[in-house]
Formats: sequence, C-alpha cells, structure tokens
Amino acid sequence: MNYPKGIKVTPQKELKKVITYGNRGMSLENDLNITNEFYRDQDRAIIYKKPTPIKISKVNYDTMKITEAFFESPSTTDYNGVYKGRYIDFEAKETDNITSFPLKNIHKHQLLHMRRVLDHQGICFLIVRFNKRHETYLLFAKDLLQFIEGHEQKSIPYTYFQEKAYLLEEQYHPRINYLKVVEEYGGV
Amino acid sequence: MNYPKGIKVTPQKELKKVITYGNRGMSLENDLNITNEFYRDQDRAIIYKKPTPIKISKVNYDTMKITEAFFESPSTTDYNGVYKGRYIDFEAKETDNITSFPLKNIHKHQLLHMRRVLDHQGICFLIVRFNKRHETYLLFAKDLLQFIEGHEQKSIPYTYFQEKAYLLEEQYHPRINYLKVVEEYGGV
Repeated sequence: MNYPKGIKVTPQKELKKVITYGNRGMSLENDLNITNEFYRDQDRAIIYKKPTPIKISKVNYDTMKITEAFFESPSTTDYNGVYKGRYIDFEAKETDNITSFPLKNIHKHQLLHMRRVLDHQGICFLIVRFNKRHETYLLFAKDLLQFIEGHEQKSIPYTYFQEKAYLLEEQYHPRINYLKVVEEYGGV
Repeated sequence: MNYPKGIKVTPQKELKKVITYGNRGMSLENDLNITNEFYRDQDRAIIYKKPTPIKISKVNYDTMKITEAFFESPSTTDYNGVYKGRYIDFEAKETDNITSFPLKNIHKHQLLHMRRVLDHQGICFLIVRFNKRHETYLLFAKDLLQFIEGHEQKSIPYTYFQEKAYLLEEQYHPRINYLKVVEEYGGV
C-alpha cells in the first residue's frame, strides 16, 4: 500500500503485539480506549473513560506533586458520553472464569447507577470479556438488572450471555464495534 | 419546624458558613455537587462531577497506597450525565474578575470537546461564577463558541454574560437550579 509522505504507519502486527502482550489486565480497557478514540475521530460518538477516582491526602504545593493518595471505589460506571444526542453509559469487565461472570466484579453503587440511568432513558450496558474464551459480550443493563433482581446467584452463567447478550466482533478498527449493537438493538 | 426523630438536621446557617468560609476555590464546585445530589435524590437527573484526572507514577502494591502522582489537565469538561434521556455536559468556573471572564480558565481541549458535544446534539454549557458580584451565570456552549470564534479577545466581557447568559438563582435546595434554565432555553 502507498501512504502519503509524512504519515507514520504502525504495522498491524506490531500494534497487535503491544495490545496482546502488554498489561493483560488492561487490554479490554485499551481496546475500548482505542475504539472510543476511533469513534471520536470518525465523528460517530463522543465517549470517554472517566478518570479513576482517587482520594488525595497529601500534596506538595510547591511542586504540585501528590505524595499520598488512595484508590476509591467508583460510584458510577467507567465510560460515558453522547451518541446521537442520547446519553450512553457503560461498565467494562474482564474475567478469567470460563463458565460464569462473578458479580463481585460490579459494585452495588454501580448497579444502582445503572438502574438510575435506565430510569432516565439513558442507553446503558455492561461489556464483559471472557479472557480464556477470547469472547467479548455486550449485555444491556435491562437484562443485567433483570438477572440480578430475579436470582440469588453470585455470578451470571456464561449461558445467560449466550442467550441475552450480543457477541462483539473484534477487528482492527474499531477494535470492538459496540455501537453497531447499540444501533441495532439499543433503541437509538 | 418539627422533624421526625432520628433525622439529623444541619441548620441552614451552619451549612452556609461551611460553604462560604470553607475552601473558597471549592465553593461553586461544592454548590454544584450538592445540587447534583439533590437532583439525583429527587430523581430529576443523573449528573456527576468526573474525578480529577491524575497521572499515577508510583504505587506501593502491598498497601495500594499511591506515593507519587501528578495532576493532569482535563481533556473534557468536569460534569456530565443524563437528563430526560439527553446527554448533558458542562464546565464550571469561578473568577474574581469583575468586568470579564478570562478565557485562560478553559483549556483548548475543553473547547474542542464542547464543540463536539454540540455537534452530537448534546446539551452543553459553561457555568461561571463572578465571585465578587455574587452572581452565577449559565452560558450555552453555542454562545460561548460563537464569542470565541468571532473575537480575538482573551476574555469574555461581563456584559456578554448579561446579554447572552442566564443568571442562576441561588437558593437553599437546589443550591443552583441550572436545570430550570436548561428546561426553558436548552431545547429539552
């Protein structure tokens, strides 16, 4: 392929290597950040990951360096933004489990937040990657909350994802085209 | 007034004192956090301040204590959420200036973000408090961007706020009822 002069091309192979063998725990997050950047560049949607909530306890005001701080548990989901004027909001999690997704991965506050977003007609969902299956699913909040409200189980069986969630295609760009599912099944 | 047993009542005077004489730089932020909490409690809207973006450089993984981190400049605005299914997004700033609002208070990235939110039919605005006037205005992003695109000036005159922005009433609850303006003039 011929590229115009001055455009730096990252070979697909190299990029893939970075993503795959980098910080494994970060890879779904990486994929989503790249996807959201692509959506912004293509002017499809404006969606960002929120910064990690941190409680700052000591700051050196001369250098503005934070010298003591702690991670806080999030009261909302990690991602939000706008798509065709609509509010969009989601959480993303990875699991090494094969047969189920443990609900301890989602805080109670986050579930309450999702319920509220739904009540306010926002588009809300959970993205779950089953690492060992190399599969990533989108489960709408309606189906997530329905499961939680109707079951005592502490995890959602993989079969529930097969039944109710949407398998997200993974490709070069966008890495995880979740807006396609939102467009087709999210009522936009 | 009679309150049911067990309900802790903070006298208005005391609350006001905390807000007014606390960290002065935080008071608009405080007012907005209290307002957003009130909106959530009243089920009117789900709007949060995003966490401050921080770059973490050293963590003690035994205690999960962050021992070195730095403040990052934000690439988006501070507040966002959902109101009647619509995406809502805004930035809030205070100034001690009397005759104008210095534009150095808003990063270029934030202006670009506001432009994008508008293009995607989100509701977007800037809240500015003129501390010494005890006045807080809501300026819709459309009018903010129109000013910036049409002028070379490095600040927005106070008269422009009088002309184009909406003076926000301050009261006990909600502290700053900005949704009233959004409802009346924001096209919701």
